[in-house]
Amino acid sequence: MAFVKVFRRAVQKMGSLSLYQYARRTSRSHLGGFLLGTGISAFATVVIAHMEPYRSRKLNTSKYMAEPITDVTYLMESEGDMRTKMELLIMEIQADFCRALEVEEYAGHKFKVDRWLRNEGGGGITCVLQDGEVFEKAGVNISVVKGHLPPQAIQQMRSRGKKLSEGSKLPFFAAGVSAVIHPRNPMVPTIHFNYRYFEVIDTDGSKQWWFGGGTDLTPYYLDEKDAISFHKTLKDACDQSDTGYYPKFKKWCDEYFRITHRNECRGIGGIFFDDIDTPSQEEAYKFVSDCAHAVIPSYLPIVRRHKNDDFGDRERQWQLLRRGRYVEFNLIYDRGTKFGLYTPGARYESILMSLPLTARWEYMHTPLPNSKETKLLEVLKNPRDWL
Amino acid sequence: MAFVKVFRRAVQKMGSLSLYQYARRTSRSHLGGFLLGTGISAFATVVIAHMEPYRSRKLNTSKYMAEPITDVTYLMESEGDMRTKMELLIMEIQADFCRALEVEEYAGHKFKVDRWLRNEGGGGITCVLQDGEVFEKAGVNISVVKGHLPPQAIQQMRSRGKKLSEGSKLPFFAAGVSAVIHPRNPMVPTIHFNYRYFEVIDTDGSKQWWFGGGTDLTPYYLDEKDAISFHKTLKDACDQSDTGYYPKFKKWCDEYFRITHRNECRGIGGIFFDDIDTPSQEEAYKFVSDCAHAVIPSYLPIVRRHKNDDFGDRERQWQLLRRGRYVEFNLIYDRGTKFGLYTPGARYESILMSLPLTARWEYMHTPLPNSKETKLLEVLKNPRDWL
Repeated sequence: MAFVKVFRRAVQKMGSLSLYQYARRTSRSHLGGFLLGTGISAFATVVIAHMEPYRSRKLNTSKYMAEPITDVTYLMESEGDMRTKMELLIMEIQADFCRALEVEEYAGHKFKVDRWLRNEGGGGITCVLQDGEVFEKAGVNISVVKGHLPPQAIQQMRSRGKKLSEGSKLPFFAAGVSAVIHPRNPMVPTIHFNYRYFEVIDTDGSKQWWFGGGTDLTPYYLDEKDAISFHKTLKDACDQSDTGYYPKFKKWCDEYFRITHRNECRGIGGIFFDDIDTPSQEEAYKFVSDCAHAVIPSYLPIVRRHKNDDFGDRERQWQLLRRGRYVEFNLIYDRGTKFGLYTPGARYESILMSLPLTARWEYMHTPLPNSKETKLLEVLKNPRDWL
Repeated sequence: MAFVKVFRRAVQKMGSLSLYQYARRTSRSHLGGFLLGTGISAFATVVIAHMEPYRSRKLNTSKYMAEPITDVTYLMESEGDMRTKMELLIMEIQADFCRALEVEEYAGHKFKVDRWLRNEGGGGITCVLQDGEVFEKAGVNISVVKGHLPPQAIQQMRSRGKKLSEGSKLPFFAAGVSAVIHPRNPMVPTIHFNYRYFEVIDTDGSKQWWFGGGTDLTPYYLDEKDAISFHKTLKDACDQSDTGYYPKFKKWCDEYFRITHRNECRGIGGIFFDDIDTPSQEEAYKFVSDCAHAVIPSYLPIVRRHKNDDFGDRERQWQLLRRGRYVEFNLIYDRGTKFGLYTPGARYESILMSLPLTARWEYMHTPLPNSKETKLLEVLKNPRDWL
């Protein structure tokens, strides 16, 4: 096996794939040994002679938004490892989604890319498109983080049913992609999604792993056709793994994204799940991958349908008020935001990129009876089955 | 004494009140059977001749923003009780402050007044002036609340050092005034203050009481003269009770109003304290009353100095970003907001009136070096002694 790794590394250095192909293949990579191609006999000398292409290839991540957080060489050596598969999946999801959004923009608005590293281990890539014509604020973030969980974090996991030893720090690994897109036109809903993989190593060396995630939509005005197509796309993705998933995770989503003090949901839901560790790691990964790949088909058609809709000050003001509610949910209730912000050394700019560019709070605002604003509120107060 | 009370009540019911007022007041009274029958005509005549001071006192709710939450008759019977003293104090502070702000407004912008009652006991008066010329959003709230504290709230108090029985609900009383004023002109700082009195009755019938409160300033641009005059006014109020108070409570304020994840303070501080139950109830009350009376002299001169200052889009945008930070503090860290929103049946509109009309979040915003925005940030990161 050690020889195979060295062998593979050598081949990787030979430049037989175009930079683009290289990135594409490794990103989906169940390919492993196929990299072993022709002309192997002379590889050792060739490698030394061609170090320059290796370097540039290593740096090239043309398909991704930036170079992966984990060393590329290491990633290629560990293609079968779920950590690697997940890192490459989230890199791909991030890049595909950012590019798809950029296609909808005008005047060349592009994502700004920040690759950052944590002192404690790992890092992330934060992509933000701010003040665009179509997207007022769009944030797409990946993070690949390792370190040690403090006892109180372990206690929280135990309270959720995880069997982990109490009282000591435990090594963990987490990789995830998350995005929040706030469009400018109030007829285009905000979307949020997050897909993540988590590993904890217990004191006896045993590993526990699970996946979590979800995609949900927050419209400012209700378009039933949008709601149905959005939910249908998510259901189709879920059904590939288990037809019981969509109804279960749709309900979980309605319950999770609830602004409790207002007794209303943040939006019209979608799917939400956590602690997925069955039926097998491969199948759980495939489910998460299917859901993550369903984001673009669930959302982009809605963007295209509405991004040029007419709207006026009334619609804009309502959108800003609803964005205030979005801020309330994220800062008061969202577990991810709270967990993130309370973590020492957290990159708060990446956590808070989910907040809208502008939000508004009016005292005692109540839309007129029978208005289109009230129609939305009714659905937020009483989540509907869309399919 | 009992006779005097009956006597007073009888008079209160005589012709000096309109039927409407009379009905409103008695409908919530605890007086029931005390209603006097016939045969008091002579008595009544005497009363009317001599009760002018009482009557005008009772009727003089015109000075307040609305009728007190507690029945006026009961208040007058219990003048020496700290609950009554505190309710009358917060009513006065609320009204004086609202009137003082209205004087600074143009075009007749006035506070909107909502008097509300809780099913569980007590209620409040919420005054909001929204979209004024000088004040973009100004909220001044009082609440007078009683009920039973759930065991977890008692647990929290125990963890703060209160000696209270565990495991059962305990009757409590709370009365407080709180205000947040967000002016329109970025040269005028936001002010927040809160003064409160709390009582808990333990299972053995013993009563514990304490006061809490504070006043703090959140400028968008630093004016050292303002900072000094503001702190000086608060110090003078504190010094009347104890010259050790200001330094202690100034430090507490800097520590409390800290946006931990950004490692900066919300503003330039002021004073903050809790659990004040010494040297005596009367003296603690006087201290709180002095502080509450210092709000107007600490703030109004600053409003007058800057409300007509020139500003442009740069200053407005910075103000909106700083208001985003204000929202972050209030929704993530502020104990009062969290405690309020997690309380079932809470009046969230009164709790969230502290949020600005508009706030903004830009990814990775950093002001230019040596700019006036950076000058403010330096003080927020390193709280200064102003006196």
